[in-house]
Amino acid sequence: MFDNKQLFSSVVNEFNKAESIALCGHVMPDGDCLGAMLALGLALRQMGKRVVFCSPDPVPAVYGFLPCAGEVQLELNKQWRFDLFVSVDCSVPDRLGHFKELLDRAGRVVVLDHHAGSVVFGDVYLNIPACAAAGEIVYDLLPLLPVVFDEDIATCLYVAIVTDTGSFRYDNTGPMTHLRVADLMKLGVPAARVNKLLYEEKPLVSLRILNAVLQTLGISDCGRVAWMYVKRDTLRSLDASDEHVDGVINYPRMIKGVELALFFRELEDGKYKVSLRSKYYLDVNKLAARFGGGGHPRASGCLIEGDLEDIKGRLLQAALKALRDE
Amino acid sequence: MFDNKQLFSSVVNEFNKAESIALCGHVMPDGDCLGAMLALGLALRQMGKRVVFCSPDPVPAVYGFLPCAGEVQLELNKQWRFDLFVSVDCSVPDRLGHFKELLDRAGRVVVLDHHAGSVVFGDVYLNIPACAAAGEIVYDLLPLLPVVFDEDIATCLYVAIVTDTGSFRYDNTGPMTHLRVADLMKLGVPAARVNKLLYEEKPLVSLRILNAVLQTLGISDCGRVAWMYVKRDTLRSLDASDEHVDGVINYPRMIKGVELALFFRELEDGKYKVSLRSKYYLDVNKLAARFGGGGHPRASGCLIEGDLEDIKGRLLQAALKALRDE
Repeated sequence: MFDNKQLFSSVVNEFNKAESIALCGHVMPDGDCLGAMLALGLALRQMGKRVVFCSPDPVPAVYGFLPCAGEVQLELNKQWRFDLFVSVDCSVPDRLGHFKELLDRAGRVVVLDHHAGSVVFGDVYLNIPACAAAGEIVYDLLPLLPVVFDEDIATCLYVAIVTDTGSFRYDNTGPMTHLRVADLMKLGVPAARVNKLLYEEKPLVSLRILNAVLQTLGISDCGRVAWMYVKRDTLRSLDASDEHVDGVINYPRMIKGVELALFFRELEDGKYKVSLRSKYYLDVNKLAARFGGGGHPRASGCLIEGDLEDIKGRLLQAALKALRDE
Repeated sequence: MFDNKQLFSSVVNEFNKAESIALCGHVMPDGDCLGAMLALGLALRQMGKRVVFCSPDPVPAVYGFLPCAGEVQLELNKQWRFDLFVSVDCSVPDRLGHFKELLDRAGRVVVLDHHAGSVVFGDVYLNIPACAAAGEIVYDLLPLLPVVFDEDIATCLYVAIVTDTGSFRYDNTGPMTHLRVADLMKLGVPAARVNKLLYEEKPLVSLRILNAVLQTLGISDCGRVAWMYVKRDTLRSLDASDEHVDGVINYPRMIKGVELALFFRELEDGKYKVSLRSKYYLDVNKLAARFGGGGHPRASGCLIEGDLEDIKGRLLQAALKALRDE
């Protein structure tokens, strides 16, 4: 078994050997895979490497302010070859989307991940579930490279950490998270400005959707389950798309006494995507599994076809039983 | 001039001399004055002091989980005398409310504050505007006392800091803030749980009010000013009170492109309380001053009597002019 110190050396060794390096995050990129990937790429460029950033899905507009965000490629010429491919924040190869094929076309593959229960792949596999964000792993790697830790790199890593910890609220946040962030701030991250760019530049339609969705708020007689829904017609009438619904599941969960929040989003094909979030103790991974879905103990999802009232009824019945059985 | 080191010694000296100590925060107590006051009181009790906690207004339900929150007194017997009175997080004596009279009844007065431009009062006046929270000052004081820094104290200080920094988003948050919080977490603060108690236990009526208020959302043609309002009738019809409106001003401000957010709350007496919040640069203190109000550059307020449409028109006209003049 390698311990982390040896693994870190192996990763650094791969970086040193390679001349051309492709970095890639996961499908539906978030602040962590983007921030960690861009920070690492900026560092590797300082070392004189030819670096290409890849993402299987477009960079969400909210992350457009990140250094080099505009350089991220959604497609690559099939002829391109790389000495090294670095998978950032992907728990399984499939999460690389169509860039999964680069795993075979690259000379070597390094995997940087922090998810528990991930699949092992690549030539060097560095997974530290104790890190709240992939950005924390990159933070720990950089001092081992001949690189100046500048404000751009620090800003990318700050974004990686602040987004993956829910602004330091999730239980993945530990003392080390705050220590790393203190250091990033010393390096000049304009944290207040970054937080405004991340959380206070929402399109107007997001608030219109929030308003429409809040009108559907329901709560069980016992007060422990709350739900909301959005129909396709509502999204169409407000000229909104799925991304504008992101995060609304947090609203039913923030009600006093609620342990389980449900959100039903109608998909184009008559199915409903159900999001399940628990607050303190309910295992929603188990609950979602009973409907063919899954995820994490506090955040899971499933797909169900049928009539909304019927689906709500089935979910609610199973949820109340799960709460009774806890 | 005293520097902080000498002032810290003076404060410690006062703590050591006193046998009975009253601690008091400001009117409409927030997480910082309560957390800082309770942490300090718990420490002073470890030293064998007789400590009484005072607050001119009731402790909001959301802070009820803080250790000793249930002991906070809203009134004190006029006969009580204290060797020492400690004002926590009050920029001026008037912010002590009716407990201001204790300033005269106490043997000595210590002031712990972190507001810029505060009034100097008391026998020992320790104001550190570089601290994001009064809780940070208490954090720095405690190692000078013969006290074990336990989980209860750490939790109170964590709440003080997380609330006064807007979850580490405001520009008062510096590297030192994160370093102090890392240390508090090492002392055992259950941060994820505390954040849920602070931010995910809202009464249902708060979401109903948010929904009602979002329906009043308006935005200027230029997209730089957004506003919302709430009428007394709406509050009454939802059985809501003013506290349920707290924080809704953040919603118009989080719209992309908006620099200035306005919120109009009708008071019982036909006046409107106008809240002004800017995002990046507009000085709303100046803007509010033109309507007889004031506050801070990014957060101010004023009171205006009259018809809502007329008031909105006047504010909007002044706001657009201020934005043009910037």
